[in-house]
Amino acid sequence: MEFFFDFVSPYAYLASTRIDALAAEHGREVDWKPTLIGVTILKVMGMKPLMDTPLKSSYIAHDKPRMARLMGVPLVQRDMRGVNSVAALRAFLWLKQGDPQAARRFAREVFERLWVRGLDITQVEDVREACIATGVDADAVAAAIDTEAGKQLLRSAVDEAVAREVFGVPYVVIDGEPIWGVDRLWMVEHWLRHGSWEPVAR
Amino acid sequence: MEFFFDFVSPYAYLASTRIDALAAEHGREVDWKPTLIGVTILKVMGMKPLMDTPLKSSYIAHDKPRMARLMGVPLVQRDMRGVNSVAALRAFLWLKQGDPQAARRFAREVFERLWVRGLDITQVEDVREACIATGVDADAVAAAIDTEAGKQLLRSAVDEAVAREVFGVPYVVIDGEPIWGVDRLWMVEHWLRHGSWEPVAR
Repeated sequence: MEFFFDFVSPYAYLASTRIDALAAEHGREVDWKPTLIGVTILKVMGMKPLMDTPLKSSYIAHDKPRMARLMGVPLVQRDMRGVNSVAALRAFLWLKQGDPQAARRFAREVFERLWVRGLDITQVEDVREACIATGVDADAVAAAIDTEAGKQLLRSAVDEAVAREVFGVPYVVIDGEPIWGVDRLWMVEHWLRHGSWEPVAR
Repeated sequence: MEFFFDFVSPYAYLASTRIDALAAEHGREVDWKPTLIGVTILKVMGMKPLMDTPLKSSYIAHDKPRMARLMGVPLVQRDMRGVNSVAALRAFLWLKQGDPQAARRFAREVFERLWVRGLDITQVEDVREACIATGVDADAVAAAIDTEAGKQLLRSAVDEAVAREVFGVPYVVIDGEPIWGVDRLWMVEHWLRHGSWEPVAR
């Protein structure tokens, strides 16, 4: 199954804390696939950012902490102005080419850095620190993400996500079934368990 | 608890098939509150209709039937062009003033008319047929919804929904907790059962 994410999404972070274990319980592997969801929402869909959407922003502000509480994981409130995930996602993709497991550890570190410790992830220095915490070669990553090939990896990933109609994150595709939102992890679990949408006796 | 709905939303229809029973299992009553969600989305939020939103429309087209299947209820695919809920919602509000139970029966009939039988609900004649099927006075309703007072009832209801930041339907408010979406009925159930967002041991 595929797990589309962007580090800047708190809901993608929340889903990231559960998705691998959920899949493993049913003998499945997860392919983590990044996208730049802000670019998709603003440029492809022509919509406003979530927090600038009238009526919806206060709901989201209320919902984020309660969803974290329900899932039993930490989540800080933080100002996202100036934060972007371009460098960190390039690093993830470059790492994934050579060592998918290291890339996964790096992704967890970046999510935690931003959403648990409230640190930035935007600058190359942030990415280097995340590499060091993950035990991967920070110099090699910092060099790679500044190359044309490194940039192209992320462009291709975003293109794929848009072509696949990933309009929000987290976004799971399992056996061709698209499932959007951390609030639908119950549907991912239902599919993993039953392999169909037949209702289950309550 | 409050249940904000609009007849034109298939997801509100799906939630309407479950919400009263869910509440009753926990000794709660549901106050059904209509809004014109299209007006809210287009005029207040400045957004496009769901089915005109790039990337999202095919997801929704796939999601509606699977959600109905999961919930074990019928749902027809239908062309919504030209369908609006103004007359039917005015009728609901007028009926609610005098007999909330009759209004509830009328609402179920309108939802079924549109989403199970695939009939229209837009014209006064549609509303009259729904009244007759519900056993309420069709002539009185048809007259009432054409009065200034009848129109004002719906304007006030929409104003309240917008003031309460109801940005989509179905939208449940329970003990001050706003919960949007049929895909979050599990959260309504969680709150009814536990009265908090503390995680439950799995």
